[in-house]
Order: sequence, then structure tokens, then C-alpha cells
Amino acid sequence: MHENKKGSGFTGHVPDQLFEAKLEGIQDTSLAEQRRDQICDAALELFLKKGFASTTVRDICALSGVNQASIYDYIANKNDILRRLLNKLWFRSGVPNLHELMKEHPQESLEDCVRLYLSESWTKKRKGTLLAYRTVPHLQKDDRDAMRSRDQLVIRQMAEKFRHRAGLAEDDPRAEIISNLIIYLAGFGPLRDWLHQDIDDDVIVNTVAAGVTAMVETLAHSVEQPEPQPS
Amino acid sequence: MHENKKGSGFTGHVPDQLFEAKLEGIQDTSLAEQRRDQICDAALELFLKKGFASTTVRDICALSGVNQASIYDYIANKNDILRRLLNKLWFRSGVPNLHELMKEHPQESLEDCVRLYLSESWTKKRKGTLLAYRTVPHLQKDDRDAMRSRDQLVIRQMAEKFRHRAGLAEDDPRAEIISNLIIYLAGFGPLRDWLHQDIDDDVIVNTVAAGVTAMVETLAHSVEQPEPQPS
Repeated sequence: MHENKKGSGFTGHVPDQLFEAKLEGIQDTSLAEQRRDQICDAALELFLKKGFASTTVRDICALSGVNQASIYDYIANKNDILRRLLNKLWFRSGVPNLHELMKEHPQESLEDCVRLYLSESWTKKRKGTLLAYRTVPHLQKDDRDAMRSRDQLVIRQMAEKFRHRAGLAEDDPRAEIISNLIIYLAGFGPLRDWLHQDIDDDVIVNTVAAGVTAMVETLAHSVEQPEPQPS
Repeated sequence: MHENKKGSGFTGHVPDQLFEAKLEGIQDTSLAEQRRDQICDAALELFLKKGFASTTVRDICALSGVNQASIYDYIANKNDILRRLLNKLWFRSGVPNLHELMKEHPQESLEDCVRLYLSESWTKKRKGTLLAYRTVPHLQKDDRDAMRSRDQLVIRQMAEKFRHRAGLAEDDPRAEIISNLIIYLAGFGPLRDWLHQDIDDDVIVNTVAAGVTAMVETLAHSVEQPEPQPS
């Protein structure tokens, strides 16, 4: 896999999730799954409350009820738990990205798609977003690289949709910037809506959706009305 | 000070900075200031690299060159250092907020003001933004409350400017949401522009500035063109 520093020449393999340790000591896979869920739920609560660095495997055992002697049958270490949580909450949450929603609902307006995207992200991905923004500095290099590749893939896919919609040139970087910005806006709810406890969630989603739509339409508009040409 | 959970009835005192311990053991105030800067610079580097929780006062001494026996002449503890850093980098950075820029440059377009606001924030407040988003969970309750009061004050001031500009009613919450969103967008550079290493900084700032302007204008537009009234 090569570095994607310059241009859009990235052709490397993009992992569809972070690496999870293979642990096959436990024969009963459904029990193993259940224990792993217990461990991950407890770890998520602790990572968000105390932070990743301050949480010990001992803390996770205490809260999850999983014995310290057996926890390593289910997970490899604290970083392995974090990877499993990010896979579950950030990458594979069943919350479609905006370009996927636009594809699934071609009859809906952009604004309706944005509204759906934001409200789904803000409710279902809430903890995943907090976890991702707070723990990035604690990720190991390989994991950070994998997170970046995944983000870049989503940004590229979304940008393609916007370029098509707005009639932009294939090398116009603005579609990528807007895509990245929209992913960032999916974090607005989790990261900043606690400042709006007195405002209805619907009003917040509608206002931001209208704003994002205006942003994307501005891109299209800049193409539809080019500089006047000398005749 | 009462809780500001409902409505805009907040009348409490808003501290203009987080509390800094008064330490007057050192007579030479310029020396004390210099040592404090050394300590804060080292702590910032470590907090961003290793995280607040994983950084010890011993680490800060080692990197800053300040002796462990004398460090408590300059700062009270690790939280005191964090407060001083947030005061310096997040609250008092000499980077004006958007509504202040609009007031200072009434002849400039909204888009130019947004461009200036974003580029100043993304360059001069970069580390302060990273520090604020990452350390909020580690702040003590009083400090979190003070951070929130400050944020709410800035949101209110900015919202007032937008309401005036867009001719919105005084109780229209959308102006507050857009203001909060703009503060959040001031974090886009530090938190997400590492995904755009192949795109010129100017293109990023211009694209986001055009988008934010469209967002604010959409608010104004929704008022200028009200629902048709029965005649």
C-alpha cells in the first residue's frame, strides 16, 4: 500500500475494518460473542467517561463482570477492544453515508437526504463519533492509517456523487472538501448539541440540513454560472 | 450562578477565563512568567501527543527543564496547567470571533469575514482547538461549566448579529444553532484537514467560507421569502 499524499492516484487496498485479533480458545462461539459484547460495552462506557489512557483492563473486568483470568480468551488487549468498538460504532454501524442515502432514495430532495443522514448519525453513531474524535491520538500507527484510508474512501465516494450532481470537473478538489466537511458535520450533534439543551432536536437537524444543502448547492451554482466569456 | 437549561434567561456571571491558581512564592514576576511559559509549552506538546491523562507532572518537568522541586512554585497541579493553556489558546488567543470581525470590518462581505475568521482560527488556534476537543472529558466540573458559559456567551453574541442581519425574530433559535455550527467549523481545519494534504490551504478555506456564507444567507432567505399569505 502506498502513501496517498499527492493527487487522487490512490489505488491501495482499503481495509473495510480495523484488525481484530483472532482468538479461538473458546469453542462456544455464541458465548464468546456474548462475553465480547459485555467487555466492549463496559470499555465504551469507561473510555468515554475516564478516557482511553486512564482506563485499565482491570477496570473493564470490574465493570463488565468478566473475570481477569479469562478476559484474554476474548480480547487481545485494550487496543484490541478499541478497534472492535470503532469497527462496530464508527465503521459498521448500519448508518448509511450521505451518498448511499442519495442513491437509495433518488426521489428524495438533497435536503431530505441530508436531514436523514444527520439525524441517523446523531442518534445511532453518537458514541462512535465521540470515541473516534477522542481516541485518535491513542491509536497505533497502523490503525490510524486504516482509519484515514477508510475516511478517504468515503470522502472520494461522496465527492464523486457531488461532482456528478454539480457538474464539476473530475479534478475539482472542492467536492472532496465539501464531502469531508459533511462527515465532520455528522459530528456536530455529538460534539456540540449539549449547548442547545433548550432547543428541539428537530429544529437543530432541520437548520443544519438546510445549511448543508445550501453549501452543496453553492458548489453547483458556481459551475452553472461561469465567468462571462468574451463573445 | 444558576443552570441555563431552558430558555435564554441566563443572567449569571460569565467568567472571562478559567481559574488560575494564585502563586506568589516567586518575587521575580518576569522569571515566574518565563518558567510558566516553559512549563505550559512542554505540557501542551505532551497533552497533544500522549493525552492529558497519560502525562505526568514528572514528564512535564523532564521536557520543560523545570526542576521537580520547584515546579509547584509556578503551577498548582496538572489541571492548573491545562486551565492556563485553555485560557491562552482557546479563550484569549487574539483571534476574533466572526461577529467581532463583522463589526470591525463593516465594509467587508460576509464571505470575506468568514474567510478571515476560518484562516485565523485554523492557523493561530490550531493547538487550542485540538486541546479543547480532546481534554473536555478530563476537565473538572467547575471548569466544564465555565467553558460552557463562555461558549454560550459567544454563541449568543454571534446569534444576535445574525438575527439582526437576517431579520429574524428575537426568539428564533436558528441563529444560535448557526452560531454554534460556525464555532464548530472553526475546528474543521485542526480536526480534519490532515485528510487534504494534497489540496492547497487557500482552496480549503475559500470552499468552506463560501459554504458557510451560503448557510447564513439561507437563514436570511427563509425570512425574506415567507410563506405566501392569503390576501
